[in-house]
Amino acid sequence: MTTLPTRPTLLVLDAEPLPRLGRLTGRARVVHTGADRLAERLPQADVLLVWDFTSHAVREAWPGEGPRPRWVHTASAGVEHLMCPELAASDTVVTNARGIFDQPIAEYVAALVLAVAKDLPRTLEHQRERAWRHRESRRVAGTRACVVGSGPIGRAIVGTLKALGVTTALVGRTPRTGIHGPADLDRLVSRADWVIAAAPLTEQTHHMFDAHRFGVMQPSAFFVNVGRGALVDEDALAQALTRRWIAGAALDVFTAEPLPEDSPLWGLPGLIVSPHMSGDTVGWRDELGKQFVELYERWAAGRSLVNVVDKKRGYVPGH
Amino acid sequence: MTTLPTRPTLLVLDAEPLPRLGRLTGRARVVHTGADRLAERLPQADVLLVWDFTSHAVREAWPGEGPRPRWVHTASAGVEHLMCPELAASDTVVTNARGIFDQPIAEYVAALVLAVAKDLPRTLEHQRERAWRHRESRRVAGTRACVVGSGPIGRAIVGTLKALGVTTALVGRTPRTGIHGPADLDRLVSRADWVIAAAPLTEQTHHMFDAHRFGVMQPSAFFVNVGRGALVDEDALAQALTRRWIAGAALDVFTAEPLPEDSPLWGLPGLIVSPHMSGDTVGWRDELGKQFVELYERWAAGRSLVNVVDKKRGYVPGH
Repeated sequence: MTTLPTRPTLLVLDAEPLPRLGRLTGRARVVHTGADRLAERLPQADVLLVWDFTSHAVREAWPGEGPRPRWVHTASAGVEHLMCPELAASDTVVTNARGIFDQPIAEYVAALVLAVAKDLPRTLEHQRERAWRHRESRRVAGTRACVVGSGPIGRAIVGTLKALGVTTALVGRTPRTGIHGPADLDRLVSRADWVIAAAPLTEQTHHMFDAHRFGVMQPSAFFVNVGRGALVDEDALAQALTRRWIAGAALDVFTAEPLPEDSPLWGLPGLIVSPHMSGDTVGWRDELGKQFVELYERWAAGRSLVNVVDKKRGYVPGH
Repeated sequence: MTTLPTRPTLLVLDAEPLPRLGRLTGRARVVHTGADRLAERLPQADVLLVWDFTSHAVREAWPGEGPRPRWVHTASAGVEHLMCPELAASDTVVTNARGIFDQPIAEYVAALVLAVAKDLPRTLEHQRERAWRHRESRRVAGTRACVVGSGPIGRAIVGTLKALGVTTALVGRTPRTGIHGPADLDRLVSRADWVIAAAPLTEQTHHMFDAHRFGVMQPSAFFVNVGRGALVDEDALAQALTRRWIAGAALDVFTAEPLPEDSPLWGLPGLIVSPHMSGDTVGWRDELGKQFVELYERWAAGRSLVNVVDKKRGYVPGH
């Protein structure tokens, strides 16, 4: 391997303070930057930590040729915000925050599924009107979920829903034991009570939930997106909800984030809008910082990195 | 055993249509009654089915002496609405709907716990204001619950919360393997993130959640009542919420049901009010009807009944 400088330059693209980097004091020259000076600083950096994972600045600032970081880490599960042809073609290693968000997101999806089955949003509405309106609610055990995305997040969602007695089917890019391929998607979606999108955003998954797919769902089905906004054709979802093709949906991610105040999605019938928070539990920034420091220590010791993203596919390939 | 009449008289106290009784056509003389004519009809009945489980009419109409039903079944888990000293002292057998509500109520409690951990009620508020407000939410796995009531409902709640990774403690009237006695209650309640009331209403459990008990809970604790309203001193709960002794609560049952429109409980900070619906999932009336028919068939065949309530204690004693 190439010799490392004694004190590598760690460039941090940040918008908020980040914890745990103190452990690297004396072992790395840490330089913080905003998006505005990223392009100018990238050639001097050995490592880039994309702490502000909402920023698209890396994609725009990545040098076409010449010196550049050998390693880029993003404090997020998705990498679509930083990937560009030049980065994909380079020998720079990209790692992500695989493993941090799995269980929190699985709990979040379980919360939505149970809240919808028990009609909790309507109960809260009736409470505001001081109206005692008894309704029958639904059992969750015995219902069917189709989880799309067979990475650690999708698998954690399956584990949590199974623990609640839900029958689950998991769909990934490549069929293998316990995982269906895309050819089964329409059949599984058409039988599901819950359709959960937890896939990475790639060319193949862009707008995979479109008018056709909402059309094959049951009128009683509920759709959840905790992956990336652009997995969903939002106009098609709006139509599916307005015309009652499906019973409801919950979006935690959107094509444009923050969701603009004038977006019609805020007020769609049967749609729950949340601000991209499904994976962010108390202490998550600390976990992300700790994970990066561990990766940095592996890298500085010349050991192989984990969570290495397949830059062509746009995610860490599964086991 | 006493000889049964060929066609016993089954008196049904009902407010709503009830399913499944058709199976008894020709085998029982089924007489429906409202509360107003109950007292007059009770002496002619062999069996009383309390289908309207919200009614207190049995307690008032039960004959002090003379002919009376040999068997009373209530389509509810609780029996406090029908029990009176004369019924308790008589040789009439009382059975309840044990087993129908366990899993639905366990799911309902899990829905509340997850929704609160994920701050879902606030997310819905922000959505109405079209406000994108990212927050950190809480993990459910690793939190602690204290479930009070060691019958099938309490045990089902424990099972479901455990499946979500919650550490649980179960409290019953008598300590035994896996179940704490009342002596441990304060200690367990003081350490719990979630305190769940699922006990029957008896002299011992009346107002067991009072100012003292809310006072020992953690300021971050959340209280849930899916048992009976009078387990809770509602004034003490109001005070505990207003003074922030605890973080929040959800009541599905109340001292007075339906909760009057002018009750201050509707608007208490941090309180979720629902209309006694936690156990009532689609098909529940059908399940209740089926359960009664099965019990009736045992009774008519001279076999021993199940779900027999200990009339002194007010519930079916545990295994």
